[in-house]
Amino acid sequence: MGWGIIGTWRMALEGVQHASDMLSKGGASGDAIEKAIRMVEDYPFYKSVGYGGLPNEVCEVELDAAYMDGHTLSIGAVAGIKDFKNPVSIARRLSKDRFNVFLVGTGAEEYACKHGFEKQNMLTDRAKKMWESRIQEIKEKNLNPYDGHDTVGMICLDKDRHMTAATSTSGLFMKKRGRVGDSPLSGSGFYVDSKIGGTCATGLGEDIMKGCLSYEIVRLMGEGFHPQEAAEKTVNAFSRKLSERRGKAGAISVVCMNNIGEWGVGTNVEFSFVAATNTAAAKVYIAKPAGNKTEYEEAAKEWLDVYQRRIEKTV
Amino acid sequence: MGWGIIGTWRMALEGVQHASDMLSKGGASGDAIEKAIRMVEDYPFYKSVGYGGLPNEVCEVELDAAYMDGHTLSIGAVAGIKDFKNPVSIARRLSKDRFNVFLVGTGAEEYACKHGFEKQNMLTDRAKKMWESRIQEIKEKNLNPYDGHDTVGMICLDKDRHMTAATSTSGLFMKKRGRVGDSPLSGSGFYVDSKIGGTCATGLGEDIMKGCLSYEIVRLMGEGFHPQEAAEKTVNAFSRKLSERRGKAGAISVVCMNNIGEWGVGTNVEFSFVAATNTAAAKVYIAKPAGNKTEYEEAAKEWLDVYQRRIEKTV
Repeated sequence: MGWGIIGTWRMALEGVQHASDMLSKGGASGDAIEKAIRMVEDYPFYKSVGYGGLPNEVCEVELDAAYMDGHTLSIGAVAGIKDFKNPVSIARRLSKDRFNVFLVGTGAEEYACKHGFEKQNMLTDRAKKMWESRIQEIKEKNLNPYDGHDTVGMICLDKDRHMTAATSTSGLFMKKRGRVGDSPLSGSGFYVDSKIGGTCATGLGEDIMKGCLSYEIVRLMGEGFHPQEAAEKTVNAFSRKLSERRGKAGAISVVCMNNIGEWGVGTNVEFSFVAATNTAAAKVYIAKPAGNKTEYEEAAKEWLDVYQRRIEKTV
Repeated sequence: MGWGIIGTWRMALEGVQHASDMLSKGGASGDAIEKAIRMVEDYPFYKSVGYGGLPNEVCEVELDAAYMDGHTLSIGAVAGIKDFKNPVSIARRLSKDRFNVFLVGTGAEEYACKHGFEKQNMLTDRAKKMWESRIQEIKEKNLNPYDGHDTVGMICLDKDRHMTAATSTSGLFMKKRGRVGDSPLSGSGFYVDSKIGGTCATGLGEDIMKGCLSYEIVRLMGEGFHPQEAAEKTVNAFSRKLSERRGKAGAISVVCMNNIGEWGVGTNVEFSFVAATNTAAAKVYIAKPAGNKTEYEEAAKEWLDVYQRRIEKTV
């Protein structure tokens, strides 16, 4: 049997590579996806997830994460959690419970403490400097403070056709304390059913949750649509609907995979993603909207080099 | 043009009656639904919503609420908020923002304070006594602590065909601190689109969020299904799916209405609800599962009398 894993943004690369190795050796999708997301959470230069993630308006790093099991439909999620190293692992642990599976704020922190999860101050010097310079910039240029909201979300399929979904994010940069986006919300930020496939979203959570896009794309795959068709059809239709009803639509990007390892993406802005299957090693792709479609191509070496220099840049 | 409003549980009655009066005089669905939910929140004997709601495991009353506008798809939601009189009004206020529309815990409380919402200690003596006696009972009989999770959820249609949805709940009795159920989650606890209709859910939030049932029922109404058919079809199929995948399904009940005032309900347990339209005054109904269908009938006077005595009973 085949296997596969797809994740949002270039930052998913190292995790997807590691997970690919696990999956190719028969590893379970739950273990592979958790490890892959943890690698993104742990890397200090990815500034929208985990350690080094950008803080809220009062300079606290508040994190959201979720985990879903495609066999049992079990969900675990945390939101607004501070000072824990790996929110995705807390979410996965919560998914094993029947009650109280979505915990927020201090309640989530108490649960994590009681279950032995590692504490860590998640604010890096680098993130603090970015926050200070952004505060200055907003003041000087009278900007809308809210910008940047890159969730890492992945869908994973193992050789036993067991599928999982997981997300992790520090949310909207400069968000209000306690703000929750789509990432920990079932059906909006993620959804997976091993009998069909799974989807994860990234973008403006406030708009994504208005459409339950992850659920809808899985539903369409269940009706027989190829993941690519399901993803672009859903994102385009909903983006148009938001424009009609509200005058504008925020950024919306999704990645999805069905339970035979076929995958697809849909987006209304340019975004990068990473995919790997038993027939194609992990690669970074750049996707962009093109009429009613979403086009994508492998990222050029130049793009990857520019990316590398940018994320490691001293603030 | 017609109007209509439907709400979960007998506790919706007084609010639905008041809202009916507003709607019949041309009142807006946003104002009518907010007022109706506030009446449930304010009534001290409704022990799963607002003032008098049952506390969490550490005897704090943590409240969840949401509001959705069917024209703009705007959503506002709060979860785990303490010491504010009317969570639904805070949710409605949040729905007017573009960013940070879902706030939890202390962040939600700070927002409510800054925007002048009324503070109130939401724990009543009665709720505290119930909590104490439940703690004792759990200890003596070695019970599963989690029982009781009645959300008030309503869907409202005004004469201008403007639809709204709103929910409010104190969540699972004895829940862990910070636990969030389906009630504030778009697509799970509620969903509404003025061009189609709306749905609200009540029951075990942990299971409802596994299926995005409110979104799915609205979607089916959009495909032309009568609300009753859409509701019973969705609840039955998902309840069966949970049993297959997990061995059991928690309680799931939904109420829905389309944009011409036709309504329906679906449930896998016995539950009560209230509906009113321009052609039929507010009545309490009792619904129960019957094979693949959901049957309902008007509540008998005897049932209503027993209910009244029970909720006003001294603890």
